[in-house]
Amino acid sequence: MRFSSLIKVLQTGDAGLRWSQPGADPWLSGAASLEQAAADQLSFLEKGNALTAALGESSVGALLLPDQQNLIDCAGERGIAFAVFSDPRLAFAEALDRLHPRRRPLAELHPTAVIDERAVVGPGSAIGPRVCIGAGSRLGAGCIVHPGVVIYDDVIVGDGCELHANAVLHPGSRLGRDCVVNSNAVIGSEGFGFVPTARGWRKMPQTGLVVLEDGVEVGCGSTIDRPSVGETRIGAGTKIDNLVQIGHGVSTGRGCAFASQVGIAGGAKIGHGVILAGQVGVANRAVVGDRAIASSKSGIHGEVAAGEVVSGYPAIPNRLWLRCSAAFNKLPDMAKTLRELKRATPQ
Amino acid sequence: MRFSSLIKVLQTGDAGLRWSQPGADPWLSGAASLEQAAADQLSFLEKGNALTAALGESSVGALLLPDQQNLIDCAGERGIAFAVFSDPRLAFAEALDRLHPRRRPLAELHPTAVIDERAVVGPGSAIGPRVCIGAGSRLGAGCIVHPGVVIYDDVIVGDGCELHANAVLHPGSRLGRDCVVNSNAVIGSEGFGFVPTARGWRKMPQTGLVVLEDGVEVGCGSTIDRPSVGETRIGAGTKIDNLVQIGHGVSTGRGCAFASQVGIAGGAKIGHGVILAGQVGVANRAVVGDRAIASSKSGIHGEVAAGEVVSGYPAIPNRLWLRCSAAFNKLPDMAKTLRELKRATPQ
Amino acid sequence: MRFSSLIKVLQTGDAGLRWSQPGADPWLSGAASLEQAAADQLSFLEKGNALTAALGESSVGALLLPDQQNLIDCAGERGIAFAVFSDPRLAFAEALDRLHPRRRPLAELHPTAVIDERAVVGPGSAIGPRVCIGAGSRLGAGCIVHPGVVIYDDVIVGDGCELHANAVLHPGSRLGRDCVVNSNAVIGSEGFGFVPTARGWRKMPQTGLVVLEDGVEVGCGSTIDRPSVGETRIGAGTKIDNLVQIGHGVSTGRGCAFASQVGIAGGAKIGHGVILAGQVGVANRAVVGDRAIASSKSGIHGEVAAGEVVSGYPAIPNRLWLRCSAAFNKLPDMAKTLRELKRATPQ
Repeated sequence: MRFSSLIKVLQTGDAGLRWSQPGADPWLSGAASLEQAAADQLSFLEKGNALTAALGESSVGALLLPDQQNLIDCAGERGIAFAVFSDPRLAFAEALDRLHPRRRPLAELHPTAVIDERAVVGPGSAIGPRVCIGAGSRLGAGCIVHPGVVIYDDVIVGDGCELHANAVLHPGSRLGRDCVVNSNAVIGSEGFGFVPTARGWRKMPQTGLVVLEDGVEVGCGSTIDRPSVGETRIGAGTKIDNLVQIGHGVSTGRGCAFASQVGIAGGAKIGHGVILAGQVGVANRAVVGDRAIASSKSGIHGEVAAGEVVSGYPAIPNRLWLRCSAAFNKLPDMAKTLRELKRATPQ
Repeated sequence: MRFSSLIKVLQTGDAGLRWSQPGADPWLSGAASLEQAAADQLSFLEKGNALTAALGESSVGALLLPDQQNLIDCAGERGIAFAVFSDPRLAFAEALDRLHPRRRPLAELHPTAVIDERAVVGPGSAIGPRVCIGAGSRLGAGCIVHPGVVIYDDVIVGDGCELHANAVLHPGSRLGRDCVVNSNAVIGSEGFGFVPTARGWRKMPQTGLVVLEDGVEVGCGSTIDRPSVGETRIGAGTKIDNLVQIGHGVSTGRGCAFASQVGIAGGAKIGHGVILAGQVGVANRAVVGDRAIASSKSGIHGEVAAGEVVSGYPAIPNRLWLRCSAAFNKLPDMAKTLRELKRATPQ
Repeated sequence: MRFSSLIKVLQTGDAGLRWSQPGADPWLSGAASLEQAAADQLSFLEKGNALTAALGESSVGALLLPDQQNLIDCAGERGIAFAVFSDPRLAFAEALDRLHPRRRPLAELHPTAVIDERAVVGPGSAIGPRVCIGAGSRLGAGCIVHPGVVIYDDVIVGDGCELHANAVLHPGSRLGRDCVVNSNAVIGSEGFGFVPTARGWRKMPQTGLVVLEDGVEVGCGSTIDRPSVGETRIGAGTKIDNLVQIGHGVSTGRGCAFASQVGIAGGAKIGHGVILAGQVGVANRAVVGDRAIASSKSGIHGEVAAGEVVSGYPAIPNRLWLRCSAAFNKLPDMAKTLRELKRATPQ
């Protein structure tokens, strides 16, 4: 599409278009990073972006820019078409949706799908090949269910959800509207609960629910367990990356983001807007306050206060941890100094 | 069911019913945690349970209690029906099985299943839609195979096993009786073995077996690799959580429990009753003694003695690690003190 | 097969046969480790192998040996057939391929496969039951696609690839020749990219490519994400173990090896021949030089120089880390000494 047509569309979006200079109004066939963009591609820059220098050498066709004079000047001098936005990253996201519109599968039930006669599928939903839907399960309107998805009995899926290939929803799964479950993810599997007995581990039946509130996304291969009683609950708009484990009875607030390979053990309570970086672990029944952030690989026990940034294992405030880590690397020197001082000190 | 009927059933169980006071003999429709339980729900308490205070405010209908006088008194005063057990948690597990009986699928081969003519399926087994079973593979009696499971050639599955949706069993998988393989788990995949050559990595063929002894359970998305020769063996009654990796040639004893995201590298030898908490790593050929426990995120090399509790990376005895970790957080202070002492000490 | 026949085959291989003494020329039905091998089994030893002592007690039928006199003498004295190779491990790999030849499925499209009419499947490819192949996707010649694999639209798979059961390839996946994607792995899933807005996380569309160059292998349950623009690229001959996460926009060189549960965050640049041990994490946009090695559980930020060996979190040179870790275990003692010195030192 022409850059000028794209700008017209973005004008109605959320990114805050300020003004634009479409110049030669290039035809855009796609988008790329600034270094790799060709004359028929779109790119973007953010405030203070380290790539600013690259702008001078880029062959990009059109740019989404922040309101930053040196960038605007440079684009202007080089004759690159551009538009200025309050949030150029958001503008880029909206532009990608236009440049690469997603093809929606036909709203049909593929003849190879195995849908129990006691299951309900809402209008406008597309059920792909080899999908299985069990007794008593209900899908809302406008859902997309990709090939190989298995929905057990007693599952409820709200309107507008997308379930990717080979994902599995176990009994007791309750999805709100507009959720995305990515390929090979498993929702509602049995929590890891066993009672020690003289004859070995005895399974504690896991009969509760897993509730994904509206707009939750679950990454590929991630697993969210159902509890013995009560529910596991993921707050609205929370985004979960690939290979994340969420144990039975965990609850999270709204708008959290959990990066890949995070593990949250049973019964942990996570507040709103919490960000856990890659490979973070949260122990059983830990409590994490709103907007707390844990850096990668940290391990959380006990309690983290709202707004706190923690690191390390066991996790401590990030600033302290940075100093402790720096000191850790000097431990051999410290030990040596200590030995020397000991020798030099009369006992 | 009525509480009195439930008690009659539990009397024949393993939880050690001592006595009961069914009171108004409430009708129970389910179970819940003490804080959330309603008048038609069952709950339980354990000795020294921190929830004791909650009992005074609970609306629970009936309780499974330990033999602890203050709890019994409180339940009695509040007119809550109760029964006293040696192991109220185990009683609760048995009660959940009664209150939420699992529906067993019909023992039939679904017409969409693709079963090789040289495969054998035992009597009373239920083979769900879209299951594939390869040549020469044998399933015992009374198995449940959920939709989308793929069983390659040369797999043996004992009686009473349950294989959940989209799980995969590769050639050389040998499952005993009553094993559970959860959704999207992979058994018998090729171990990660490559020989370095001048032309790059050359695959070492992985031709051995993966043996799951009786009663082993494998969590969602977990992977257990076959070795080049010999076997990978998981001891009877061992329970494995979600997203766990077990490398080629690993052997574990009976009754182990491995929490989510544990990784055990090739050739490690794990004793009986070993407990590995979340995200623990065990290195190649490490040896872990019976009943050892590793706390979350610890990394085990070399050898851990029987009964030892270890933590940290590299893992050290837990008590020492607790003291070292506490000291770690004071490293900046220690470094400062050290500098001051150095200044104050004549060299 | 007879040992002498096997030797003839290995003579044409890459393992460098020097000479052999087939003795009684035993019939070999398989292979085993030295301790477990029976008279009809093959085994091997490497230089400086700790199992040398085991040779005296082994019942092995035939051996592949390095050019090491004491091993050769011992095998000769015990009358064990043997052959001497420059690289006995490589010879063993080649021997296993002969002793356990892989059965290739028939080159046919199974009638239950759902192949879009706009998809192309090359000659000699075997498409198993319940496979789905979407519009515009193209598979090369001689591929093996196991049951339950889902290939979305717009995927290209080169000649000779093998895709294991229930693996998923998303749009934009580009596989070279001779790649292996193991069971339940997911290629080309959407990168974890969201723009924070006043109304919560807004998905950044992920429209780029995932390129697996020739000979790449991806383990079970592993996930490789596509980026918003540009590509995620895995270099030729790189081997990836189970449950590994590779984020959007990552690039790796040729011949890398990533062990299980490694996580590489978005935009990281990994050189050629890099080895990451189990559970290693690499942070966003980190840069790892050629042939660098990271030991298990280490966490890499920033930059690692070519050839460096790093450990710990944050990762530091392995030698320093070994000394720091040793000192860590003595922290309580150091703290005590420090307190004593402080008392003894006039302030």
